[in-house]
This record gives sequence, structure tokens and C-alpha cells, in this order.
Amino acid sequence: MLPEKILNVLKSILPQTKGPISLHEPCFAGNEWKYVKECLDTGWVSSVGKFVDRFENMLAEYTGAKRAVAMVNGTAALYIALKYAGVSPNDEVLLPALTFVATANAVSYCQAVPHFVDSEENTLGMAPYKLFDYLKKHVEIRKSGCYNPKTGRRIKAVIPMHTFGHPVDLDPLFEVCQSFHLEMVEDAAESVGSFYKKKHTGNWGKLSLFSFNGNKIITTGGGGAIITNDESLAEMAKHLTTTAKVPHKWEFYHDQHGYNFRMPNINAAMGCAQLEQLPIFLEKKRCLAEHYRHAFKDIDGIDFFTEPDFAQSNYWLNTLLLNETSAHEKDTVLEITNNHGIQTRPSWTLMHKLPMYQDCPRMDLSVAENLETRLINIPSSARLGEPYAEA
Amino acid sequence: MLPEKILNVLKSILPQTKGPISLHEPCFAGNEWKYVKECLDTGWVSSVGKFVDRFENMLAEYTGAKRAVAMVNGTAALYIALKYAGVSPNDEVLLPALTFVATANAVSYCQAVPHFVDSEENTLGMAPYKLFDYLKKHVEIRKSGCYNPKTGRRIKAVIPMHTFGHPVDLDPLFEVCQSFHLEMVEDAAESVGSFYKKKHTGNWGKLSLFSFNGNKIITTGGGGAIITNDESLAEMAKHLTTTAKVPHKWEFYHDQHGYNFRMPNINAAMGCAQLEQLPIFLEKKRCLAEHYRHAFKDIDGIDFFTEPDFAQSNYWLNTLLLNETSAHEKDTVLEITNNHGIQTRPSWTLMHKLPMYQDCPRMDLSVAENLETRLINIPSSARLGEPYAEA
Repeated sequence: MLPEKILNVLKSILPQTKGPISLHEPCFAGNEWKYVKECLDTGWVSSVGKFVDRFENMLAEYTGAKRAVAMVNGTAALYIALKYAGVSPNDEVLLPALTFVATANAVSYCQAVPHFVDSEENTLGMAPYKLFDYLKKHVEIRKSGCYNPKTGRRIKAVIPMHTFGHPVDLDPLFEVCQSFHLEMVEDAAESVGSFYKKKHTGNWGKLSLFSFNGNKIITTGGGGAIITNDESLAEMAKHLTTTAKVPHKWEFYHDQHGYNFRMPNINAAMGCAQLEQLPIFLEKKRCLAEHYRHAFKDIDGIDFFTEPDFAQSNYWLNTLLLNETSAHEKDTVLEITNNHGIQTRPSWTLMHKLPMYQDCPRMDLSVAENLETRLINIPSSARLGEPYAEA
Repeated sequence: MLPEKILNVLKSILPQTKGPISLHEPCFAGNEWKYVKECLDTGWVSSVGKFVDRFENMLAEYTGAKRAVAMVNGTAALYIALKYAGVSPNDEVLLPALTFVATANAVSYCQAVPHFVDSEENTLGMAPYKLFDYLKKHVEIRKSGCYNPKTGRRIKAVIPMHTFGHPVDLDPLFEVCQSFHLEMVEDAAESVGSFYKKKHTGNWGKLSLFSFNGNKIITTGGGGAIITNDESLAEMAKHLTTTAKVPHKWEFYHDQHGYNFRMPNINAAMGCAQLEQLPIFLEKKRCLAEHYRHAFKDIDGIDFFTEPDFAQSNYWLNTLLLNETSAHEKDTVLEITNNHGIQTRPSWTLMHKLPMYQDCPRMDLSVAENLETRLINIPSSARLGEPYAEA
């Protein structure tokens, strides 16, 4: 019965269309074509161009961070952010078990080891107090930092991830980092437009990153960016991701192992147009979330996830949480909705259940494991928040 | 005198324009608008979409390789190609000292060590016979492969690079690889449209890669691709570069450390339009090269580089070689031409002169070192090969 009820609520909120309704699709209703066409007309399509600079400036201004550095995608941005947070080979890095695989992969690219942290239900993100207790019991503070005595490895950094765009509880996490000499790098891939206590996510990390993949709230096709309030880190990140070429009118001299991670101008052009529309997207997405909240509130056996008090979420992906007693119906809900052309999705497989990460250190992950059995994402595109959806 | 003569020849060939004439700029005279707009209109801008598939099929068909896998850039493609050629941490990889830094960087990303090889003047690429003699003298063949007894490391692969689009002498290099149990990975970043003995470059390597950066003969803004004649390697490369996600209608399960290296659909859309125009670009570029060859042939102290007999080059970047006796005028040539709005460029700094590669193993590099003192690239855009340039 519950799966049918959920399907019916979704049908009542979502527009009647012939084709399937996807989880999240982009909306190009602004200056995308104008700016992209400008790139094609002028020939400036690649890694140098005014839209890259403009996009970076717009991002910095919108988020309130000092600097933004545009990159080829969020994974690359996280990798570079971790490097400049000082993550070295054989370090451990704390990150949620409940995240997209890129968070853990970026740690691996540093030849470091993920160390998995539990989540809390009110944010779907890292649980700060549980983490504090865990570290207090299980780590050693030495002169050179925080150590995991079981593995002998240094624990260098913490990567909170703003799950589905909902801000984690950053203040206590920041305190945990201070207490245990850990650097924070926010994986804000999903949280462009999300604020924690009136300040944009990404401002707590030494460096933080966004993703502009096609499924995100704003997209550049593929793309990402680092934001930071440290000017010199931004300069270094820009240098490193543009092959570490030393500026010269014609000489090709590179002063370190660099990367080719710069966002192309044509992708940045889309980004500028998308960022112009972000306030509209946010309004529509919050409107859709409000419709969902209202429609699901009388359905027993299920909760519609809403932002915690300290947060203003972009509601990137709307989320249903089945109650414990109805968790066994998750697969039926997924089947019935997808079969009716309404795309829904379960949680990512938790990181410690993937073959390449199953032997990584971890704390008790019971909340994340419980959330994994109950979590379902439902369609969340901005266009679905139009007035016509107010049926 | 020579610098002025060179300037005058360039002026006689190149159109009189107000703005500077760059070394290489893209040309978007085909279906770029149409295809890119289709992406925006349909919302398919990201890492899944019909243009990615179409671009891969077009590339495979054009090059005669069995499969192409589109990626975010040529550097990423080379890194993945090296991985699937079996390059492991602490291996050595043979590559020319005269190359763009990305060739060496991709080796570093594998935690392997570049081992630098000399060039030959008739191709500007790797010198096969000199390499053969060097390996004969300096390596040991053991059961598990070719070893460098000086460093104790295995030498796993050879990366010939088709400098400025001009094919290296692939047959003898292929024999060297056979003789010494080395895998070949062609860095064909610059040689889309270049043929060796009637067959497209990239078909000798176990895997090979192209770049579609903004300065290349065809561009996707930023982009690259692997080509290979091994279907299973292509499948593995595609899987690895799309986060190693195991296909499922909703589950997120990844079976290994993957990468986010897929080319976005909007960039592939440009690539399709560009590839359609490649025959025209090639014709124009070869026409420009012929103008240059003719105009420079009576200037003493300088040679215009022309393709060797076995090759049909795309003439991506046209190249002047100063004679030994006029090499000291190189900087003056660069100054005077750039000051007159004609962009020219010297050789890349040789790899073993960069701080991060100065301690890498290398053979005698006297030819590359000599070429570095004499080499100048001159404007090469396809549009410059229009009939109006036949002044």
C-alpha cells in the first residue's frame, strides 16, 4: 500500500508528461546560448578566456569566498583541494561513508586512505558529536598532528559532504577539526546555493569544492571549482591546474608536476548564464520541496526530509525517508515509481561496502547503514517547482 | 638581417590584419552552433549523450582504429592509456625529451619515472635507431621484462610523440618495442589527420591518445580521446573513466578506483562538427605549409620543416629550423615577429631541464638539445591557408 501511496503523491505533484520525469535535469532558460555562441564566434573556447575569469568572480561574489578557481570537474577540484590541505601519501582522511564515490576516490588519488565517519539523520551528513567522541577515544595527538594508533598513520583532514545539498552542522565539525589538528575540506559538490547560518557552504573548509556536473543545480556540462578564503592557496591551485606553466610571452617552462584541470571557456560560459539564474532555480526548488513536504506529511510510514534549523538548503535532491517499519518496501517503491516513468533512486552504496574501500578504517556506521536502507531520492528539477505543479 | 628576412616572408604569406596573428586558432565554420544548441535545447550537456557516442564512432572510423573513448583532455587520456599498457609505480617509461610537459606528467601520475630519449631531425620525434643502440647497450632483458640495471627499475613502455603533428618513424620504433618487450603508447595529441605510410597515427600503440585542446587542429574546447584496436581495453578504459560504475537502473555500485574523465556531451558536440571539417582544415593547412616551404626555400640560414617521405602530416604547427650558424638569432626572430603581431614560439623547454624531471634517467640528448636552440613555430591556423594567402 505504501508504495502506491507514494506513487500517487508524486503523480499529484509532478506534471503529467508523456516522457519519464528524471531525478534532476538542467534548465537553460537564460543567456546560455548567447554566451556559448560568443565563444564560438570569437574562437575563445578553451582554457583561456573571459568567461572562465567571469565565472570565477561570480562564484566568489555569490559565495562570499575570497577566490574561486574553476576546474574540469568536482573530483579534480577535491583532489587539488586535498593536496593544498596538506594531505600526503599514507595519511588518513575522515569522510562520510554515505557519499558519492568521488569523495573517497579523490582521497585515493592522493595515495591517502579514507577513514569512514557516520552520519546523522537530521542532516544526512557527518555526525560531529559522534565523531568527536570517536576521535577522543581512538586517536593520539602528537607534535606532528593527529594519529591513528591502530594503523600508525597520520589523520590529516576531514571532508564533510553536504548530502543532496543539505548543509551539515559545520560549527561543531569545525571545532572537532580545531581540537584534533585536522584540516577541513568541504565537499560542497551538491550545495551551490545552500547556506549554513546565513553564510554560503564552502566557507568553513581551508579549501572547498563545487561540482557543475549535468545533474547539479547549475551545470557547465562538466565542471567544478575550488573556493577558498586564502588568496595564496587560490593562486597556487590555479597554477598547479594549468600545467604549472610559469607565465612568459613565449617560453614553455613548468616549475612542478602540474595538472591539466582548467575549465574550458565554453563550459564557463554556460556556468555564467546558469549562475545568473541560480536565485530563480533556488526559489523553484524550494517551492517544489514545500509541495512535497505538504503532500507527504499525512502519509504514515514515511518522512520527507527538510532542512535543519541552522540551514537554508538548495534542496538539490529531495529525499524521502521510509520509517524503520516500512524500510522493507524500499525496492518496491523504486520499482513502482520508475516503472511509472518517475525516476527515483536509493542511497549510494555506502563507501565501506565497495570492494576498493572495504578494508579502510571506520567508526561505527550504524546511522549511515540505517539511512541506506530507508532513503529514496525523488524528482527535483527546478522546472518542477513551477506554479503548474501546485495541483 | 635574417630575423628581418623571416619577418618579411611571414608578412608576405600572412594576411594583413589589425590584430595579431596567433600561432593556431580554431575555426568554427561548420555545424558547431547547430550541435551545441541541440545540446542546450534538449538538456543533454553532460557526460551522457548522443554526441559523445557519435564523436567516438566518427573518430574510430576516421582513424581506422576499432574503438575511440572520449575523455576530458589528452593528459587524462594518456594517463589512462599508460595504466592499461601496464605501467605501474616505479616503472620507467621512455619518452622524448622534446615534448610538451603533459607527456612526462602523465607518466608521473602513474608514479612511474620518465626516461628521456633523443630526437631525430627528419621527424622532430623519437630517434628509433639511436634508441635501439642505447637499449642494446644499457638494458637487461629478464623474464618479467626489460630492466634498467642502473636504477633497478623495469622499463615498461615507450611513448613516441608526433611532434607538431609530424609522424615519427613508427615501424622501426615498433620493432624496438618488440625487441625489448616494451609496450607502445602513441602520444598522438597533435597528430589528428596525420598518416604514417597511409595509416592514421595512433594505430601502432597498444593504446594511443589525441588532444582536442583549443590550440589543436580540431577542438572540443578541452578534450581528448584514447584510440585502440583492442575492444576489451576500450571497454575497460570507458568503465574506468566513468567512475567505474557498474550499470544498473538505479543502484550506485563502483567496482574499482575510478576516474571522472568523461568528455561532456556539449564538448563532444563541437567535436563532431569539427571532425566533419577536418578534411578542409587539412587541405588548407597543407596549402599554407606549401606556401611557407616555397617562400622560405631561398632564404639562407633557415629550413622550413617538411614531412618525411613516409608521412602525410597535418602540419599542425609549421616549423622553421635555423641553421647552426644562425641559431644565435633565435631570440631576435622571436622578438621581432611577436613585436610585429605575428605569434611565433620556440621549442618547449626540454623535459630534462625542468626541475621536477632533471634527475630522471636519459640517453644522450644531443640532437634534441640542438633542435631546441634552432626551432621556431610559426602561425599555422587553417584559415591562413585560404587562397588569399597566395600573394
